[in-house]
Order: sequence, then C-alpha cells, then structure tokens
Amino acid sequence: MLDVERIRGDFPILHRQVNGKPLVYLDNGASAQKPQVVIDAVTRAYAEEYSNVHRGLHYLSNLATDKYEAVRGTLARFLGAPHEDEVIYTTGTTQGINLVAYGWAMPRFEPGDEIVLSIMEHHANIVPWHFLRERQGAVLKWVDVDANGVLDPQAVIDAIGPRTKLVAVTHMSNVLGTVVDVAAICAGAREKGVPVLVDGSQAAVHMPVNVAQIGCDFYAVTGHKLYGPSASGAIWIARERQAEMRPFIGGGDMIREVTRDTVTYNDPPHKFEAGTPGIVQQIGLGVALDYMMAHGMEAIAAHEADLRDYAQARLSGLNWLNVQGNAPGKGAIFSFTLEGAAHAHDISTVLDKKGIAVRAGQHCAAPLMDHMGVSATCRASFAMYNTRAEVDALVDALELCHELFA
Amino acid sequence: MLDVERIRGDFPILHRQVNGKPLVYLDNGASAQKPQVVIDAVTRAYAEEYSNVHRGLHYLSNLATDKYEAVRGTLARFLGAPHEDEVIYTTGTTQGINLVAYGWAMPRFEPGDEIVLSIMEHHANIVPWHFLRERQGAVLKWVDVDANGVLDPQAVIDAIGPRTKLVAVTHMSNVLGTVVDVAAICAGAREKGVPVLVDGSQAAVHMPVNVAQIGCDFYAVTGHKLYGPSASGAIWIARERQAEMRPFIGGGDMIREVTRDTVTYNDPPHKFEAGTPGIVQQIGLGVALDYMMAHGMEAIAAHEADLRDYAQARLSGLNWLNVQGNAPGKGAIFSFTLEGAAHAHDISTVLDKKGIAVRAGQHCAAPLMDHMGVSATCRASFAMYNTRAEVDALVDALELCHELFA
Repeated sequence: MLDVERIRGDFPILHRQVNGKPLVYLDNGASAQKPQVVIDAVTRAYAEEYSNVHRGLHYLSNLATDKYEAVRGTLARFLGAPHEDEVIYTTGTTQGINLVAYGWAMPRFEPGDEIVLSIMEHHANIVPWHFLRERQGAVLKWVDVDANGVLDPQAVIDAIGPRTKLVAVTHMSNVLGTVVDVAAICAGAREKGVPVLVDGSQAAVHMPVNVAQIGCDFYAVTGHKLYGPSASGAIWIARERQAEMRPFIGGGDMIREVTRDTVTYNDPPHKFEAGTPGIVQQIGLGVALDYMMAHGMEAIAAHEADLRDYAQARLSGLNWLNVQGNAPGKGAIFSFTLEGAAHAHDISTVLDKKGIAVRAGQHCAAPLMDHMGVSATCRASFAMYNTRAEVDALVDALELCHELFA
Repeated sequence: MLDVERIRGDFPILHRQVNGKPLVYLDNGASAQKPQVVIDAVTRAYAEEYSNVHRGLHYLSNLATDKYEAVRGTLARFLGAPHEDEVIYTTGTTQGINLVAYGWAMPRFEPGDEIVLSIMEHHANIVPWHFLRERQGAVLKWVDVDANGVLDPQAVIDAIGPRTKLVAVTHMSNVLGTVVDVAAICAGAREKGVPVLVDGSQAAVHMPVNVAQIGCDFYAVTGHKLYGPSASGAIWIARERQAEMRPFIGGGDMIREVTRDTVTYNDPPHKFEAGTPGIVQQIGLGVALDYMMAHGMEAIAAHEADLRDYAQARLSGLNWLNVQGNAPGKGAIFSFTLEGAAHAHDISTVLDKKGIAVRAGQHCAAPLMDHMGVSATCRASFAMYNTRAEVDALVDALELCHELFA
C-alpha cells in the first residue's frame, strides 16, 4: 500500500489552509496538484538548463533537447506503447483529440459517415466531432449508459454500422467514475475494421494503462491531471494510423523542406509537433510520471479503490444525498446532488468555507447531464494523496449543507 | 539606459558556466532566458495557488482564475490593444497563426485566392499557408527583400491583387533583424480592403509594439521569447476579424451549450481557447511582461540598439566574415557565414567550446536562405541582458574560428 502520509509531504500545496481550514483538495478530476520533484524540475529547467530544443548545437540546447526527448520514452513506458515514436507531445487531451479530428478524420469523412460516442464523453471528446458534423456532415451516434452509469461494450460495438469511421470513447468518466471496458470495445471494433480513440484523461491518473493490451488506435492523456505541469500532455497513436494522417499544426520543426512552392514534412512524431513546444512542461511531466511509476500504478489504484469503498459506504449513509453513478469497479469520483432546493453551486460554496475544494457544474459533460436529468452536480474526485480522513471531512461538511438547506 | 548588470543578476542561468567558460547566451532569437521573478511566479503558482481555472467555485480555483485572467490585461497593455477581449491566449506564435489559418482563412479561401508573404517569413508564418495551398488551392505570393535585407512596404502593397485575401508578414526578421514597416503595409492593405497578420515573435521582444498604431488585424507573439515560460503566448485579433472566425480547437470552456445534436460557442476570447489552458505558463508570462515594461520597452530598444551598433562595428572589421542583412534600424540579430570552407555548424561548435551559444542552420526560414543563396548561417541574437563584453567574446571566438578554418 501507499505511504500516503509521506506522499502528502511531497505536495507543498496540501499543507496550506483555505478559509482558515486545512485544504481538502477533492477537485482532482479538474486538475491534480504537483509534487515538489515536479516543481523542482521546472525550476531547474528554467534556472540552469533552459534553451530551445532541436534547434541549436550548443551545450544548453543539447541538454534541454536530451531531457525533453527522454520523456517520450517515459510516456511510452507509462502507456505500454510498443514504440516511442508513437508518442506525440501535446498540451493536453483537448489538443490530442483535435489532432486526430483534423489530422486523421477530416480528410476521410464523407457526409453521412459516423462517429460512435458514449453519452459520458467530455466536451473535449465531443466538440471536435461536432465540428466534423457542422463542416462535413458527419453523424454522431450516441450510446447511452444504464441507471448505474455502466456502459455496455456490446452496445458500443452494435452501434458500429457500415458508415462508422471511428469510435471515440472515454476510459473513465470524469463525472461518474465509470471505468469503460475499452479492450472489449476495441476487439469488437477491430473485427468491423473501425479504429478506436480512447480518452484517457481520467483513467491514466488512477489505474495502470497498457495501450497494446487495450488494442486501441489513439490514446490521449493530459499532463496537468497526471501531477504534471499545466499545458503538458501526449497522445499515443499507432503507427498505422499515423501513416494515414496529414499534419495538423503547421510551423517549424514539423517540416523537412520548405520552398516558395512546396513543403514536405518531417517523420512522425515530429510531423505532428510544430513550433517551439512545451519544453519545460514535458520535462516536468516526465518527472511526474516517474513519480507515479515509482509508487506503482497498481498501488495507486489500490489506495484509491480503498478511498472509493470508504466514500461509497459513508455517502450511501446520507439518505438525502443523490449520488450519480454506481458502476462496479468505478474510480473514486463522486457526483451528487442534494434532495430539495440546494443547488450544486451552493453546496460547493459551503464546502469551500470548510476548506474543501470540489467542483460544481456540468463538468464539461452536458450530454451526460441531460441523460441523467440533472442541470448540475457537485463532484468530489480523489487522487493518490487523499485520505479517509478527507472523506470524513467531506461527509461532515455535507451534513452541514443538509442542515443549512433542509 | 538599462542597468544591465542588475538585470543580469535577475537571470540565474547567466551565472552558470558552459564548457568551463562563463555562458554567453546569444541564442535569444530561438528562446530567451527567464528572470527569477518569472521562475518564482511559476513555483508559487504550483506550490501555493494551483487549481484549474474557470471551472470551480472554490478558493484556489478563483485565485488561479483571477491571476490567469489578469494577464489578458497585461498583454493588452503590452501590445497597445484597445480591448482586453481581443487578446487570445495561445501556446505561442505557431498556434496563433494556425488559429488564423484554420479559424479565419480556411472557411473563406476559394481556389486561386492569394496570400501575400515576405520572403523573410518564419516557417510558422509559411507552413499554415502551404496547408491552404495544398488543401484549398490558395496561392502564395512572395515579396523579396533587397540585398540589404530591406522589405519595401510598397512592394508588399503592390503585390495585393483582386484575389488577395490576406497579407502575412513579419515585424522583425528572425534571421536578418530587419524591422518591417508594418504600419505602412497595413495602411496600404486597408485601402485595398485586405487584412494583415503580423508575426511579432521577434519584434515584441525588442521594441515597443502598439497594434492600434500599426493598424493590423492580427498580431501574434510567443511567450518563451518574451522571457516567459515555454508554451505561453497570445495573439491579438481585432474584434471585426474575431466576428468572422469560426472556432479552431474544440473542447471544454469554448462552448456555451453542447447537446447530442448541437453545439453553440462561447463569446470571444474564450471561443478560441479550448480545454485546460496553460494556466501557470500564462501567469508566468504576465510577470515577464511586467518585468519588461518596468524596465521600459524604449529603454530595452535603446540598449539593444547600442549592442547592434557596437556589434556591427566590430563584425564589419572582420573582412572574412559575411554578415547577411544590413537594413537600417535593424534589430540586434546577426546571421553570418565564414568565407571559405567552414560550415555554420562547425563555427557554432567552436563558439560553444568558448561558452558562446549561437544557433546554426536555416533558422526556420528556408525560403529566405534560398533567396540569399546560403544553405545555413550562424546567428547571434541579442537580448536585454547582453553586453558589449559579450560582443567582444563573440568576435574573439570568431577570430579563433578564422584561424582554425583558414
């Protein structure tokens, strides 16, 4: 098991107070806090080892390039990627999915071609496909979840028709915590010859991921949720799909030759990485992933499963609380509303007074909210540094809300 | 005048050694070093004040959002922008120009429509237009510079024909240092009803910029060259042009409503900013801009003009050195080759042994290199913290190169 007290010691922000109370940070689904090793790596990169990459032959440029490029291997290890050059650096999942939408889908979608999506997708995995609908006549086919928030993999596979060109599905719902059996979906989609994009924004934070075992074609992650710097990230894209893609962002570094009349492109992954990248951000992300892997993704998952079980037990005792989603094996993400008049935003405001950070709103998942029949929820989302005591603090504060708003 | 010794004290990396020699960092055209206040702001943001923005109602989220959004006003001040909401956050110039290419140009370019470019453009301001050529039949019209590297504004205006939809031009060449009279170009283009995009990547670092006085429609800058974090940046886009643009990157934050069948978009600037942004990067950029403005852009420009004059005088004394570009009022950027066999990369390697960081290669400006008839140059590019003594160190090292390679 994790030594959570020691881990907490690694995250400086966890020792601060908010509104006179110790911070209880349960907004990890939105973004995670950073361990000191990541902050130190960022500081060192700027204060001692900074230069642009790929562009110089001088000492600092070589040093920065080596550190920056080494993270590709770290990401490949973290994701179980067969080849380092399948890892493309991004500023996060949003950019990664847009790369697939513009680089892979846009050139091949004809009017009437379909994308199969689950109703649990985050806007990052919806809006790029709405662009294709608006601009090229693509059709979005939605697969619902059941009352517990479970997505039946067979329902996704059954939704794949002769016009389906892509399946795009989350690995873990950012609202419900539902873990999707993406391996089963990929196996079924492969039989039908349809590629699968997996949004790993949440899942990669909380459980071991192996893209080879999943059998997907695209797997997007975002560094700021992985205890890394903001604007860091990556998408894994199978070589076969990369070969089918045209470049997305145009600029330096992604070209081979530029003349007045012609342009030829660099080999992947650089073909898909234009301009000066997030040099220091990616270096910091590599340190964050090493930090996670040093503790072990299995151990992190086990700790969070314990938090989930404990939170489920305690929250289910509050019979005035409606918790959305109860899928078996779900992640430690809880969305809820209070029966009666209290709005999610009012709840979060009360929790904030107690030092507890949760999120309130639609969680960038409006179609799911519609499906659940709620306009907004509060969401408490846990991470490797959270504790049972913090679950207790949440429950105590919710009981206060119940008193206030009853 | 600037107190350069004090400024040097603010940049920790300038005190390190490279290859046993004090670092002489003359690769500022590729990326600038960071003052301690920027590094401290980044550290503080992660260690004490980190959260996702726009998404929570809790204390840390509000704090991070306030700090992050305040930078829009700083950028507006820095660029002389009439309205804060005309400032769109990016990860740098490359993303900014791609936003214009995909969001503004792509929906309105018909085959045969033209973009007028100077031959001095950086690949970031070429490749997005090559995409439009490859994909939509756009025509790239090039305007050459003269033997001194001067771009005649009238030649740009004369190149604007009835099919021209956009002029895209640098404000300062990253290879030659040439400052372009973009105000004259904008005035002429406006008479012909053609918008102008200005690549301010280099210019904004070295001289006062006022987009209202320039009269352009788009002005892109990149934070990592402005002494800010990597992956920070912005593009100023006039409201009239914003109103003509469709969104580029799809995801959270840039939408108003998302359903299964429809999507509506947020107001600018958020319409053009999808997903979790570079929160800490933009906060750091704001501190960097405040640092520059505290010293004064006029004072920075005057200091660099002195360095330029001193360097020009000393380099012109080396009759075996070919300096490319000699435009009046140019920036302190010097590209050169050695007569005879020595390749630019060999020169940069010798300079590196002396602790001097310069860049060698095409400088992401291949069409200009073709125009000049060189395959590669060495480039020494100065910044606010450089000194006359560093010019001397460069000249001494070049003399050594001359001895070695003669």
